[in-house]
Amino acid sequence: MKRTKIKELLATAPTGQSVTVNGWIRSFRNSQFLSLNDGSTLQNLQAVVELNALDESTQKRLTTGACISVDGELIASLGKGQAVEVKVKSLEILGDCDPEAYPLQLKNRPSLEYLREIAHLRSRTNTFGAVMRVRHAMAFAVHKFFNDRGFSYIHTPIITGSDAEGAGAMFRVTTLDQANPPRDEQGHVNHKEDFFGRETNLTVSGQLEGETYALALGEIYTFGPTFRAENSNTTRHLAEFWMIEPEMAFYELKDNMQLAQDFLQYLVRYALDNCADDLEFLNKRALEEEQAKPQDQRSELSLLERLKFVAENDFQRLSYTEAIDVLKNSNPNKKKKFQYLIDSWGVDLQSEHERYLVEKHFKKPVILFDYPANIKSFYMRQNDDGKTVAAMDVLFPGIGEIIGGSQREERYDRILKRVNELNLPEKDLWWYLDLRKFGSAPHSGFGLGFERLILFVTGMTNIRDVIPFPRYPGNAEF
Amino acid sequence: MKRTKIKELLATAPTGQSVTVNGWIRSFRNSQFLSLNDGSTLQNLQAVVELNALDESTQKRLTTGACISVDGELIASLGKGQAVEVKVKSLEILGDCDPEAYPLQLKNRPSLEYLREIAHLRSRTNTFGAVMRVRHAMAFAVHKFFNDRGFSYIHTPIITGSDAEGAGAMFRVTTLDQANPPRDEQGHVNHKEDFFGRETNLTVSGQLEGETYALALGEIYTFGPTFRAENSNTTRHLAEFWMIEPEMAFYELKDNMQLAQDFLQYLVRYALDNCADDLEFLNKRALEEEQAKPQDQRSELSLLERLKFVAENDFQRLSYTEAIDVLKNSNPNKKKKFQYLIDSWGVDLQSEHERYLVEKHFKKPVILFDYPANIKSFYMRQNDDGKTVAAMDVLFPGIGEIIGGSQREERYDRILKRVNELNLPEKDLWWYLDLRKFGSAPHSGFGLGFERLILFVTGMTNIRDVIPFPRYPGNAEF
Repeated sequence: MKRTKIKELLATAPTGQSVTVNGWIRSFRNSQFLSLNDGSTLQNLQAVVELNALDESTQKRLTTGACISVDGELIASLGKGQAVEVKVKSLEILGDCDPEAYPLQLKNRPSLEYLREIAHLRSRTNTFGAVMRVRHAMAFAVHKFFNDRGFSYIHTPIITGSDAEGAGAMFRVTTLDQANPPRDEQGHVNHKEDFFGRETNLTVSGQLEGETYALALGEIYTFGPTFRAENSNTTRHLAEFWMIEPEMAFYELKDNMQLAQDFLQYLVRYALDNCADDLEFLNKRALEEEQAKPQDQRSELSLLERLKFVAENDFQRLSYTEAIDVLKNSNPNKKKKFQYLIDSWGVDLQSEHERYLVEKHFKKPVILFDYPANIKSFYMRQNDDGKTVAAMDVLFPGIGEIIGGSQREERYDRILKRVNELNLPEKDLWWYLDLRKFGSAPHSGFGLGFERLILFVTGMTNIRDVIPFPRYPGNAEF
Repeated sequence: MKRTKIKELLATAPTGQSVTVNGWIRSFRNSQFLSLNDGSTLQNLQAVVELNALDESTQKRLTTGACISVDGELIASLGKGQAVEVKVKSLEILGDCDPEAYPLQLKNRPSLEYLREIAHLRSRTNTFGAVMRVRHAMAFAVHKFFNDRGFSYIHTPIITGSDAEGAGAMFRVTTLDQANPPRDEQGHVNHKEDFFGRETNLTVSGQLEGETYALALGEIYTFGPTFRAENSNTTRHLAEFWMIEPEMAFYELKDNMQLAQDFLQYLVRYALDNCADDLEFLNKRALEEEQAKPQDQRSELSLLERLKFVAENDFQRLSYTEAIDVLKNSNPNKKKKFQYLIDSWGVDLQSEHERYLVEKHFKKPVILFDYPANIKSFYMRQNDDGKTVAAMDVLFPGIGEIIGGSQREERYDRILKRVNELNLPEKDLWWYLDLRKFGSAPHSGFGLGFERLILFVTGMTNIRDVIPFPRYPGNAEF
């Protein structure tokens, strides 16, 4: 008989109908009550075996982690904690699980650190099952949001020939013999003999390529892996992570800010509407984690309260210049509590400043815009004041920068001047500059780090715990 | 005023309402009729400028490729070929386009080969606009199909520590100094000093990691870039391409075959239902291309006919052994027309054989299953006959293999024996083998090459023309 998923069974009226359920044993109590999970939902299904109905050897094999198939009747549950249960008629063991060897069994409450070492099994825990189901829901919501608005999904290249954007250190991609690479007459490594006939790296951003499509299809987005070869061992950085980068023709900075807010609010609302069980569980988990902290470091809002707050309230918009004023006059600045004191216009903001604005001063997400040109990228549109660019950052509580974007400089002479001022390789950027030569248009875009979003929505605190197999310095296991 | 997309305007009843349209000029006839495209649809919008309403210098700047913004009234069109048009009240040039320099203007009908060299602009042509909108629709349909069925999207790693699957040559990922890498005491390159503390490569498949999630969440799929460092200069291979790999617990081979058929039919139907304009255009394009071929090499069915046929007809299922019988007794085999003659059981099938089965013998998509173990991968489930495995390939007209998959070997002793027979690195596969040790379950999966699907749906014939920026030997431009 075809199996029915537990998620479906839990939503079915029990009439004694015959059902087949497959799943993994989470617990087996009193030689009678099997708690089964099949990954379709956080919830377990109770399967009730008649006492002494199984021979002793089968009973012994019903251990945590074993995979079984059960035929039985779906009936209303007499016990507390579940509406329905399955009265077992027959039971088959599909895969044993030796409790003496099963890593998830060996430790009572395995730490998140330990679970990272067994990332191939951690998805069987409640926490990681919930995180990964939410991650799926968020990925789908990203595609649905853009598809509903007529954006086209564009796969920008992963292997790229240039480091034009300068967003960070890159990984080299090569097929040359590493021990003994071919050399040219000067003794330099001869990249012409490499697979692509040139030096190539893993992309740090699909933005520049994305812009070429925005100026053809109008509104596009990317959603793909990006890479940073930086030796960052933090709870906020990965060497391999996923980014979403919309680029839109005919959007000015204010349209870009509105899209960013609409997008984030849509995603958070989608999670609240579609992941209630998992979020409820993660909310409890986060509360427990909070309780281990000193009182003054705890969040004022619970995870669910934070999500609802973000979904329902406009983000605060203010210019960099206004933000500097707020920060200069803030208590932590005046009392020299900031590590980096704010004394003049033009400095880059640190995470402590962003958190102050979001968590203490405005107590809501903040969009900062019109940053000093000197601390931002060459492709951002130059404002008429001669010193700022039409950049924007969206700052979130507990996360800091979740989105960074800008209106792009569409004027050929302006961008060319900037490329040369910064000594960027004009000849590698020929195709990017072409966009400003042939039918240029005002356009804008931004980037959302997908894992930062998942951190925010799940309340997890280490970015290594919201991606299936994290990559960071010293780790590429699995 | 906020602009309205052309796709929307073309579906609006004209009542003389004021509208703003932005777009790129496709043509300007009789100093009066502007044909505008904004990428939202294949269709252009006609904007009518009153004769002599513009000064001469503005008229001169209304060249093909220039970007403009038009304010006017939406009225019923008097001319043929469109239901509505815009009567221009005012017009602004957003970006000029010098016709003497614009690459798309310089050649009358630029070849596909030439367009590959200007991949940053080719998306502005009707052909590539259509292909990329269809590509978007197919990507969205992939996510919708799986989401609707309760599958979770899993991002498997791009940078991986092992070449366990052996699916093909790999690209190395490294941050070591290429000219002068660190060496160990024996003079070998010291990989411990590399970013991840080991040798790493770009993934060739997410399957093995995907299986770890199937045995936790039940049904999952991947959709990400994969890589082959093979020196293939063909119309069917890319060094970087996107793959979709579902993996499902509790699926046997027959369930896997059914899912593959349901999936492909869903995608093709989705294209027919959602991309009518673009497919109509691509259908005509393909017919023109066909007419340049000798009569006997033309397809019997047009693109649209092929798509409808696949969407509506069951795929033919037959075992490898049955296929060998058909091929052995076929005319091309008996008349020695095959380059590789079929004389015995056990040989691998070549593309000529697959095409014969699909295009000549059955005249429909074919699913071959139960292949000889020796020509398939170690992880495929061993059948009781002792010589075949529960593998399957889906073969499509004009494309050949579009899907490859199998039931996976879930029995620990069986897979371990196979790993050792093939001298695969058991210690690198510890986590994969763990899945068979702890709560193993019957499970299956397959891989769909996304670009092969797009070739089939768009009728394009070179895989370099269905991905935004193709990567192949000697080419990583943009």
